[in-house]
Amino acid sequence: MDKNQFQLSVDELPTKWYNIIPDLPEPLPPPKEPETGPSRMEYLAKTMTGECLKQEMSTEKWIPIPEEIRELYIQAGRPRPLYRAKRLEKKLGLKKVRLYYKREDLSPTGSHKVNTALVQAYYAAKEGKDTLVTETGAGQWGSALSYAAKLMDLNCVVFWVKSVYDWKVDRRTLMKLLGAKVYSSPSKETKTGREILAKNPTDPGSLGIAVSEGLEYTDTHEGSVYCLGSVLNHVLLHQSIIGLETIKQFEIAEDKPDLIVGCLGGGSNFGGIALPFAGEVLNKKRECEFLASQSEVAPNLTKGEYRYDFGDVGEHTPLLKMYTLGHKTEMMPIKADGLRYHAAAPLISSLRHHNIVKAVTYPKDEKTIFQAATMFLQSEGYLIAPESSYAVRAGIDEALKAERAGDEKVICMNISGHGFLDLFAYKEKMLEA
Amino acid sequence: MDKNQFQLSVDELPTKWYNIIPDLPEPLPPPKEPETGPSRMEYLAKTMTGECLKQEMSTEKWIPIPEEIRELYIQAGRPRPLYRAKRLEKKLGLKKVRLYYKREDLSPTGSHKVNTALVQAYYAAKEGKDTLVTETGAGQWGSALSYAAKLMDLNCVVFWVKSVYDWKVDRRTLMKLLGAKVYSSPSKETKTGREILAKNPTDPGSLGIAVSEGLEYTDTHEGSVYCLGSVLNHVLLHQSIIGLETIKQFEIAEDKPDLIVGCLGGGSNFGGIALPFAGEVLNKKRECEFLASQSEVAPNLTKGEYRYDFGDVGEHTPLLKMYTLGHKTEMMPIKADGLRYHAAAPLISSLRHHNIVKAVTYPKDEKTIFQAATMFLQSEGYLIAPESSYAVRAGIDEALKAERAGDEKVICMNISGHGFLDLFAYKEKMLEA
Repeated sequence: MDKNQFQLSVDELPTKWYNIIPDLPEPLPPPKEPETGPSRMEYLAKTMTGECLKQEMSTEKWIPIPEEIRELYIQAGRPRPLYRAKRLEKKLGLKKVRLYYKREDLSPTGSHKVNTALVQAYYAAKEGKDTLVTETGAGQWGSALSYAAKLMDLNCVVFWVKSVYDWKVDRRTLMKLLGAKVYSSPSKETKTGREILAKNPTDPGSLGIAVSEGLEYTDTHEGSVYCLGSVLNHVLLHQSIIGLETIKQFEIAEDKPDLIVGCLGGGSNFGGIALPFAGEVLNKKRECEFLASQSEVAPNLTKGEYRYDFGDVGEHTPLLKMYTLGHKTEMMPIKADGLRYHAAAPLISSLRHHNIVKAVTYPKDEKTIFQAATMFLQSEGYLIAPESSYAVRAGIDEALKAERAGDEKVICMNISGHGFLDLFAYKEKMLEA
Repeated sequence: MDKNQFQLSVDELPTKWYNIIPDLPEPLPPPKEPETGPSRMEYLAKTMTGECLKQEMSTEKWIPIPEEIRELYIQAGRPRPLYRAKRLEKKLGLKKVRLYYKREDLSPTGSHKVNTALVQAYYAAKEGKDTLVTETGAGQWGSALSYAAKLMDLNCVVFWVKSVYDWKVDRRTLMKLLGAKVYSSPSKETKTGREILAKNPTDPGSLGIAVSEGLEYTDTHEGSVYCLGSVLNHVLLHQSIIGLETIKQFEIAEDKPDLIVGCLGGGSNFGGIALPFAGEVLNKKRECEFLASQSEVAPNLTKGEYRYDFGDVGEHTPLLKMYTLGHKTEMMPIKADGLRYHAAAPLISSLRHHNIVKAVTYPKDEKTIFQAATMFLQSEGYLIAPESSYAVRAGIDEALKAERAGDEKVICMNISGHGFLDLFAYKEKMLEA
């Protein structure tokens, strides 16, 4: 029988996360204090859990996944299958190119974000904290953290950019059902929010304001920690579970990827699938290329500069060395809202700097993106998130390029999330255009 | 490590469907022609595929699943895991009762309906048909058939009751993205529809009208077949894949269910999980009870009579011996719309008649239903369909009853679908009530 699904048993779930830091071509440039203002490092240290902070700095290559976290991963449906996209290959007329995809869309809240949310919730509970605080833009991170908090019996407070909060009713419902307190930001819960509302009661908010509110809330509420969903080293460490599973699954499939493709905003799903493979490349155990698929509205890897910059608009983080468009850059809203971030994670940026990671951007009208997603739905049968559709678009384009050149090539795409809560976007782009 | 997830490898996917007919306590009462009007048997035979018709009558106990259909099942993500609901058990304070659930919610379109949709599409293609036609009420069946048609490169035509079509925008988008032609019924596509619209251009439609339109369309378009999503024997046969997997998974879990619980409208998901276990009970190989969870608005198993009745309002089907409320009964809309059907499948009705299947009903306000679903979400982490929530509600109630009585008991609930497209219902019932 022709098997397109490669699954690991729960016993084969990886027992360690992979940390690429010791394998990088040169030491990762450390975070730096900005020249003015209070110490951002101390501030960050104060708002995060101790274990995540330790992992952020760790130079250990393999970090054991605590038994309880492995149980949480299994509860959340891990390991997740790898599929050979034979039906899509057929539709594209591929003879020499093989396509695969990893199914993070099977996540309980709809994206890979749960892979780090569960870990952060676990450590917070272990360290005696009772509340997880965060900001959210598109809403995937807020949902994932609400879920993780509930599973660990913690409170969750989400500051959600008002302009998105107002219309993403279903995602808001999901977070609230999961017991989170979800505030439209700017809110009345913080001094920052109240000041902004006093000036303009209908201020639409921004990610910068939401982060500021979240951090202020954490500062002023004992027992709370601030949780981050992307960019930082420990987040990518937790996401390495994706790539580690995928390596084992390719062994079962008796195949080897020549190219790994993922969408990239800050870099958490891309890093998750790519870093374990990249580590083997750096150790000369494997040959493989890596392609990040981005939006023209946030082309940090293609148009950004590799320099120190803040991770957030509000300048609360230390300076991080990243490919950045500048932390004050305004980016036009797109349907794949999770990709709108001004900079790429330091780990990805370092790999980009050494030409190990390459990048491609797609136009802001997202027309070809939704066409690729619809082709994927109609061939493979799965409705994927707008963000993940960038990975599929780039995967298809690379496949066709290789096929035309007569190259045998194996491409693996990461499907970071499902699209059941994005059908409005499909409707607008595919049925009304 | 504490494993709550029991999964089969793709190699362990069952190779045969189970047909309970030869194992029933007495022969299944055959379908009958009504006293007036044309032959419904001939009509049914003309609109269905030959293979499904053959299976409908089959007295073979095991029917091989063609290799290509097994590949389609694997493409659609089968086998699906069985979970031990340890977190829910803890929340309920259970010490002697163990709860399990089968995850049909992992289906590509969100419900177990794909298990028969793929089979019907496969046989239609094999028999040279080019178009699948159906009606849909809640929309799960229409989505599943659209999906199956697309995977088999067939056309799909869905007549969707206008009153639902108008507001379930996301589900409509999904069907259209899958390439289906979706008509608001009554439509201008059929004589039946045109006549109704001439009298009342804003007629809200009904399932009866939608069925009539679908059958007329099939009659007048060569190469089309009509597909049914529940009630008939061949549909429950295809769904037996659920229970057959679950039997193997309980072996892996080294446990045995004492009670199988499913929600029941027409009976396809309930039959799917229950019949393979019921067959072993009838063959004295196992002891197990079966409980169907219903809505007070459609209590066919508790308040219905066991007699011959039509399967549809329009009287197009032969008479089937079923527990029925009467095929003209009007049922108030509920959120779990997939449970609103006037009769239970002949196979389930026969088992009910012999006291092998029991039933319970829940109030039409659905308050306790959504409370159970929210408790499930907050403990197990999965957002389930309103229909499936009836199974969870009954599972919880039976668990608490057994626990109070001090009985050791193992209960397995079937989660027939996910709730990502039902968040509006959760919002109304849980956040606004």
